[in-house]
Amino acid sequence: MRIQTAMGVAILAGLFCYGTPCFAAADHNKLMTDPGVYGTFATFRLDDAWMKQDQAMRIGQLARLKGVVEQHREHIAVDLYLMRGLSDYADLMFRLHASELRETQRFLVDLQNTAFGKHLTEIGLAHGLTKKPHYVPGFSDQLKTDLSESVDVGPNPYAIVVPVRKSAEWWSLDHDTQATMIREHTEAALPYIKTVKRKLYHASGLDDLDFITYFETSKLEDFHSLIRSLEQVKEFQYLRRFGHPILIGTPKSVDELIEILAQ
Amino acid sequence: MRIQTAMGVAILAGLFCYGTPCFAAADHNKLMTDPGVYGTFATFRLDDAWMKQDQAMRIGQLARLKGVVEQHREHIAVDLYLMRGLSDYADLMFRLHASELRETQRFLVDLQNTAFGKHLTEIGLAHGLTKKPHYVPGFSDQLKTDLSESVDVGPNPYAIVVPVRKSAEWWSLDHDTQATMIREHTEAALPYIKTVKRKLYHASGLDDLDFITYFETSKLEDFHSLIRSLEQVKEFQYLRRFGHPILIGTPKSVDELIEILAQ
Amino acid sequence: MRIQTAMGVAILAGLFCYGTPCFAAADHNKLMTDPGVYGTFATFRLDDAWMKQDQAMRIGQLARLKGVVEQHREHIAVDLYLMRGLSDYADLMFRLHASELRETQRFLVDLQNTAFGKHLTEIGLAHGLTKKPHYVPGFSDQLKTDLSESVDVGPNPYAIVVPVRKSAEWWSLDHDTQATMIREHTEAALPYIKTVKRKLYHASGLDDLDFITYFETSKLEDFHSLIRSLEQVKEFQYLRRFGHPILIGTPKSVDELIEILAQ
Amino acid sequence: MRIQTAMGVAILAGLFCYGTPCFAAADHNKLMTDPGVYGTFATFRLDDAWMKQDQAMRIGQLARLKGVVEQHREHIAVDLYLMRGLSDYADLMFRLHASELRETQRFLVDLQNTAFGKHLTEIGLAHGLTKKPHYVPGFSDQLKTDLSESVDVGPNPYAIVVPVRKSAEWWSLDHDTQATMIREHTEAALPYIKTVKRKLYHASGLDDLDFITYFETSKLEDFHSLIRSLEQVKEFQYLRRFGHPILIGTPKSVDELIEILAQ
Amino acid sequence: MRIQTAMGVAILAGLFCYGTPCFAAADHNKLMTDPGVYGTFATFRLDDAWMKQDQAMRIGQLARLKGVVEQHREHIAVDLYLMRGLSDYADLMFRLHASELRETQRFLVDLQNTAFGKHLTEIGLAHGLTKKPHYVPGFSDQLKTDLSESVDVGPNPYAIVVPVRKSAEWWSLDHDTQATMIREHTEAALPYIKTVKRKLYHASGLDDLDFITYFETSKLEDFHSLIRSLEQVKEFQYLRRFGHPILIGTPKSVDELIEILAQ
Repeated sequence: MRIQTAMGVAILAGLFCYGTPCFAAADHNKLMTDPGVYGTFATFRLDDAWMKQDQAMRIGQLARLKGVVEQHREHIAVDLYLMRGLSDYADLMFRLHASELRETQRFLVDLQNTAFGKHLTEIGLAHGLTKKPHYVPGFSDQLKTDLSESVDVGPNPYAIVVPVRKSAEWWSLDHDTQATMIREHTEAALPYIKTVKRKLYHASGLDDLDFITYFETSKLEDFHSLIRSLEQVKEFQYLRRFGHPILIGTPKSVDELIEILAQ
Repeated sequence: MRIQTAMGVAILAGLFCYGTPCFAAADHNKLMTDPGVYGTFATFRLDDAWMKQDQAMRIGQLARLKGVVEQHREHIAVDLYLMRGLSDYADLMFRLHASELRETQRFLVDLQNTAFGKHLTEIGLAHGLTKKPHYVPGFSDQLKTDLSESVDVGPNPYAIVVPVRKSAEWWSLDHDTQATMIREHTEAALPYIKTVKRKLYHASGLDDLDFITYFETSKLEDFHSLIRSLEQVKEFQYLRRFGHPILIGTPKSVDELIEILAQ
Repeated sequence: MRIQTAMGVAILAGLFCYGTPCFAAADHNKLMTDPGVYGTFATFRLDDAWMKQDQAMRIGQLARLKGVVEQHREHIAVDLYLMRGLSDYADLMFRLHASELRETQRFLVDLQNTAFGKHLTEIGLAHGLTKKPHYVPGFSDQLKTDLSESVDVGPNPYAIVVPVRKSAEWWSLDHDTQATMIREHTEAALPYIKTVKRKLYHASGLDDLDFITYFETSKLEDFHSLIRSLEQVKEFQYLRRFGHPILIGTPKSVDELIEILAQ
Repeated sequence: MRIQTAMGVAILAGLFCYGTPCFAAADHNKLMTDPGVYGTFATFRLDDAWMKQDQAMRIGQLARLKGVVEQHREHIAVDLYLMRGLSDYADLMFRLHASELRETQRFLVDLQNTAFGKHLTEIGLAHGLTKKPHYVPGFSDQLKTDLSESVDVGPNPYAIVVPVRKSAEWWSLDHDTQATMIREHTEAALPYIKTVKRKLYHASGLDDLDFITYFETSKLEDFHSLIRSLEQVKEFQYLRRFGHPILIGTPKSVDELIEILAQ
Repeated sequence: MRIQTAMGVAILAGLFCYGTPCFAAADHNKLMTDPGVYGTFATFRLDDAWMKQDQAMRIGQLARLKGVVEQHREHIAVDLYLMRGLSDYADLMFRLHASELRETQRFLVDLQNTAFGKHLTEIGLAHGLTKKPHYVPGFSDQLKTDLSESVDVGPNPYAIVVPVRKSAEWWSLDHDTQATMIREHTEAALPYIKTVKRKLYHASGLDDLDFITYFETSKLEDFHSLIRSLEQVKEFQYLRRFGHPILIGTPKSVDELIEILAQ
């Protein structure tokens, strides 16, 4: 009689490689759905020299981006996001899934060694680990039904990444108190469960976060309402950091991104 | 018997495009008055190379600014502000209204791709959503009358943007307690309602803010007195962030701004 | 039977333009003594390229500094300070007084457009408003006499600017409690009233400060003792920010500054 | 009947110089195991110019890195880590052990004077001192046995450095209260004692930290679980800083690092 | 029957100019021992261009450093420290003593105008004032004897500068409570009084600090133990800032520093 917490309700299955045969679908699906997978969020700015090059030069360099994605496709699932124009933090975001962070390191070192990579300034790098959803006892049948209706709805035009750090007070609470608050948190999120998808990464020790929450939606107003609701539950008072920065971008296939950057 | 809160009293209607036929008036008015519209505040510095160019070069590049504003005028309402000389944070501010943030992203990506845009360093980018005003019960008839007198007074020489984040404690208060404090806040603002105009954007989740408040005035001293009054009401103790930075600028039409930057 | 608070005891009258006929004395005196005047503190660093120019080039550019000061002398009172060697924050400070911040903006935009201004990197910009001194009831006759003895003592070799932000708790105190604390603050300042001059600017809403306090002294040790005394009164516990940064410089006429920068 | 605290359980013995005869093994072992040795964590970024050089040039410069390591091998034990692709903080980390910090300073000054060193931008520098393990009374026989099983397991693919600052409240606690909390901390760490190795440095006064904790593991998921466990013990509430930044890298011999940077 | 507090026990007498006849010994001794002297700690980084110059060029520029030190030797006592390799904050530190900060400003402006100074980027500048030691009543005869044994021990290889800001709560304590805590602080420092020398500067108002504490030692481990002891006394809980940054360097004569930088 256990049911997923809100933190683990939606596990995505390889949504973003739609335009790109970037690696074998089976591996990709496994990386996107298995627990014990490392998710990395790497954000970059393009340097000033990038746009000063002529278009042919840029297209040649962008081909190297595609090359390095394909070269690592056995080990790394790559999702790309355009942040420029939505976030002042970075121009591009890579979401990477791998079963070992060493693989992710190899990909990023190779990427930064390409002619394209030399125009990237690394802004942020955060890692988290996927886990089997934890179950909170005591949810009603209706709540369980609603949660189980969470299904893939296909590519969404907006992705938002929210880094989270809980306070020391949170970690010192007993499990029942925590469970009660997580249940309240989940109930507050329920009205948005069909329009705002969510995937949770556990980060403690891998960077200065406890969790990384990844959201996708086609209704940004619903995402805003979801966050407004979550601010009002008791668990919110135990967050030492929520966002700072919140990262917003639009998912792009490798080919879409190349087209945008080549203009 | 409900009445607008101070946070939503003044909804502006296309004040700043006065010198520029930047897009169809109907759409502009709709974007400036409808709820559910995304407002974006994008601030930029001009790089060191900008002023080192000769005037003809700069004028040619500024024409591209005008071009990109016109090219997007069906989807984006653009207001421009000169911040240089008033704010150490940035040189220019764009206030953008769109019904989807994707449109805003396209505008900003196109802007940064122009020869002018390559001289812009993005400093800040914050998004908020307009909503129908919320009503607080229990205002006196006199207060309602005073609030309803808030009307357009035409272009004002000063604009101030104040980012706001409320504390977790605020969000945990019950609605009656919040309403009492918002009423006190509104009453403190009343003496300035005719000389200081205000427009509210809801930001939670779209960036690291809860609200963005936009002010316009021709009497900066009244704006100072308004803020001094708001610091003294109880609600002020529930703000985790107020300003930091406060953005001050002077509204300019595209043509006025081009003239200033071409000198 | 009211008397000025320590925050408004010393209103300076055009001390720093001594070497420069920078504008009509009458206007200058009015700007330096009237309430309702905007004071702006603009701090700048000189860029690396400045000193790499030969002396003739630098002298030519410095003449443009003098030109822009004279061009705006009808509207702006300009005081200059050398901060290099005393403050790690900036090389130069401009204190500007104007009856409208638009005038200050025009001056600073023009300054930054000169050949000299292109070597200036703006570090900080803070605005405050002068007000008629507020009166605290209950001062003894002796205290009133001491305060009224505060007179001009001529140019002092050190100027210190202290930005201040009060806590939300301060603003929520009732006026009697505030008055009691301001009286204690004033009494602590009394021993230094003859050697440390002070001018107060109200900043709330114009930047992220509540007050800007400007000090001048020829006895820096007395200024240190004054601050040490003010740290020990109860009102100090209600400051959220005091300094950060404290700005120290030496007042210079335009000609003195030109001579120093031309070396 | 005393036993090591969790903070000092694992003292490493010269694990990382495996590929490099960087200095006499005896001295190295002494530096890696003795108390009273200064450990320095120096992190660097490679500048933009580094990768723009051709490979022959880079290889020539990297030979100088090897040279300076050998030149100082009598006094300094050098361990190298590749952080690029795992940490946004830096590209490289040097862990240095010396009996006097003057020796470490000489090594780093010489390093930065090499053709390779001129491409290094120093990001962080933190020093700590090794001490004989402190003993906490009252551990059970089983706990002592478990702790004593901690042995070298050979080179591990991940290294993590966690800077720690305790709160003033921690230091004011009496020793019994501290000992109880350290015992709880140690018990929480026990399940991971075989897969996550740890070495403790005392830093108070040598930089703005109280401790630097160095971890090595081949199971990063265990390290995550260890940190999640430590967050839940009472002692965690007395940390003013834990990480910020957490540094993750992969240990490399000098030759391995040269090979990677030469590509 | 009063005796110096720990904060003022050790007043140094011209230790560091040993290799350099930088100014008349009498003046130097006076500046190093008198109360009412301004001590300035100026830290600098060398820019990237410095090391790219050939050695002859660097030697020529370093001669200018020596020249400016000699030119000001009547008014300024100059001590030099190499921080590179020990502190990530800066490469060089100047400790300057003068009876007026105007003199210090003239020295630093002249320094930055030299060919060597143009390669210096100013990182930090903090000023403090020496005072006659304050006396805390109630020390035992043994404590007084121990404190009075603090004498010059000659040049020490390590110098550490610790900026300190006390909390508003500290300043609001009555003098007896403060005295009790200072006595406890002094007693904690006693075991290290012969190996760690200390000089205190009062900073309130001259920068964003209350005190600057300068330490010298040949036994860095003792300095670490001293700080660990001071963390455990009650007065430590009233510090708002201790370090951040702690500055560590090795004292050098002008000639020694020139030799190091010329390599």
